[in-house]
Amino acid sequence: MTIFLGTDDVKALLRQHGIGEILEKMVDYLEEDFRRWSDFDKCARIASHSPDGVIELMPVADQSQYSFKYVNGHPKNGERGLPTVAAFGMLADVDTGCPVFLSEMTVITALRTAATSAMVAKYLARKDAKVMAVIGLGAQSEFQSLAFQCILGVEKLRIYDADPRMAAKFMNNLAGHGFEIEPCDTAEIATLGADIITTVTADKRNATVLSDNMVGAGVHLNAVGGDCPGKTELAKDILNRAEVFTEFTPQTRIEGELQQMPEDFPVTEMWQVLTGAHPGRRNDREITLFDSVGFAVEDFSALRLMRDLAIGSGLCRSIDLIAAPDDPRDLFGYATADSLMTA
Amino acid sequence: MTIFLGTDDVKALLRQHGIGEILEKMVDYLEEDFRRWSDFDKCARIASHSPDGVIELMPVADQSQYSFKYVNGHPKNGERGLPTVAAFGMLADVDTGCPVFLSEMTVITALRTAATSAMVAKYLARKDAKVMAVIGLGAQSEFQSLAFQCILGVEKLRIYDADPRMAAKFMNNLAGHGFEIEPCDTAEIATLGADIITTVTADKRNATVLSDNMVGAGVHLNAVGGDCPGKTELAKDILNRAEVFTEFTPQTRIEGELQQMPEDFPVTEMWQVLTGAHPGRRNDREITLFDSVGFAVEDFSALRLMRDLAIGSGLCRSIDLIAAPDDPRDLFGYATADSLMTA
Repeated sequence: MTIFLGTDDVKALLRQHGIGEILEKMVDYLEEDFRRWSDFDKCARIASHSPDGVIELMPVADQSQYSFKYVNGHPKNGERGLPTVAAFGMLADVDTGCPVFLSEMTVITALRTAATSAMVAKYLARKDAKVMAVIGLGAQSEFQSLAFQCILGVEKLRIYDADPRMAAKFMNNLAGHGFEIEPCDTAEIATLGADIITTVTADKRNATVLSDNMVGAGVHLNAVGGDCPGKTELAKDILNRAEVFTEFTPQTRIEGELQQMPEDFPVTEMWQVLTGAHPGRRNDREITLFDSVGFAVEDFSALRLMRDLAIGSGLCRSIDLIAAPDDPRDLFGYATADSLMTA
Repeated sequence: MTIFLGTDDVKALLRQHGIGEILEKMVDYLEEDFRRWSDFDKCARIASHSPDGVIELMPVADQSQYSFKYVNGHPKNGERGLPTVAAFGMLADVDTGCPVFLSEMTVITALRTAATSAMVAKYLARKDAKVMAVIGLGAQSEFQSLAFQCILGVEKLRIYDADPRMAAKFMNNLAGHGFEIEPCDTAEIATLGADIITTVTADKRNATVLSDNMVGAGVHLNAVGGDCPGKTELAKDILNRAEVFTEFTPQTRIEGELQQMPEDFPVTEMWQVLTGAHPGRRNDREITLFDSVGFAVEDFSALRLMRDLAIGSGLCRSIDLIAAPDDPRDLFGYATADSLMTA
């Protein structure tokens, strides 16, 4: 039998442990996997494009576990009342090929994206960073904010969204979480005095959410929204002034802010920082930029954590996804046991 | 909610409809999809290899539906009492990216492989074919035999397996199905007088299950067991004498009997026969060879059928695999509704 963790179970785990504890644990699991980056058999995601969106499979494996995630991106889904991004994923045993854990991953992807951003900022943001601008207040924004609070101690949020209703939603969702939140009339105002700038807009085009003059010395840029071909958020000049950090560079050059830059534009992969091969931030005036697109190893880490939490809490079900015949060579006997065959 | 069809549900559908009816319907669905072959966005399977086996993802899509199958191949699993091949799959809606149907596919893969072989033989075997040799009596053998009975009217089976216990299992499983079954001491004896020869052995190496002298004029070869790199069943000379038919040639050249032949060895794809672009069998003396490896379009057809049967019968459950927030931009509110947050 395969363990199944549905959306109701994930919600129950969030209630049981608190989102802060889950984000902290997820950062631990992510750091462990980024430190052993070379253990993973990595490939770019496999995409199936259609006029209204894309469906992707993101597989990755180490020597003992295999994972994949199914994820779609359909910008027009919002008009239909459907999530623009939905996902599920699986962990399997490499030695036997048996799927062991199937899970919802819409909520888990939001958690792992936020946890990855916070893990990265732990190494790249200034140690005294307390103020974060959040530009784009959609589905990811609260998760990002809480991850930066838990992992970096961010206290103050300067927020902006083109749709003012999103600020109201954001402030309502984060009421009681101890943030000082300042809604701003423009993205530029939001960036004033920010130590960290998170861009996480949903627009599927080459936009300029941040122009070059909005980014001062010492800032860490957490660029999350530019994550597929034709979708970027930053002015190209910013990349020329910044130290750019990636997850898996071949994918980032296709999907991230890097798609604006030449193919040999120099970047550092985050595993190099995690293993100490690269120092990360070098001084308080440097501009650091995390060009986040999301990589399969992060889903692997997130699935490992959620499986461990699910098993630990008893919050999971078993489903008969995989046939289990007594004699593997007698699949027919298994399939037709007690049958009234009419063939 | 996503419809889920588990192994127990598939067994119940086999009881309700009878395996013969399901095989016949599956051939209908397969023919429909082979006839519109150019509608599909096709790619080779994505494999993750490890010392003991392989885990593969097989995606395919037309303009309205997307499917993928997860399938492993672990030859040593038999020693552990686990299936050497296990699978599950999914259908999703191309316009929205929403997964609509998740299903076990270990049993369904056996059904679709057998149905594909029978569909192909309908066009390639002699019209008067009544006798089939079955070499290799493992998990696939009974499904193959029943499909050839339902679709072609095969009446007599001449069977062989290196392990005599497999013949006993086979005869026990097919008792009452109206076959005349003759167990044979060697593969060569099994082929005597056969109009169709099905090879479906499990050995993962380059074997010679059939040598050139065992294949006479007019025979149709249903070569199922040679289906991954380094695993073939036929002497190379047979391919030189036969008209060779494939599913998706780029994949067959890597995985099928074709891996023994030069890269430009001429073959015909079965969609060409289904659409009338190629006549199939040309005369009663020709040797036809179906170099079966299994392709994603067949899983697509099989998933379509099983979803239709499942919905029609009520034999399926819903699972909360995908988050369904009231407002897609408020994933946080959805994930933490009624929560006692401790972040």
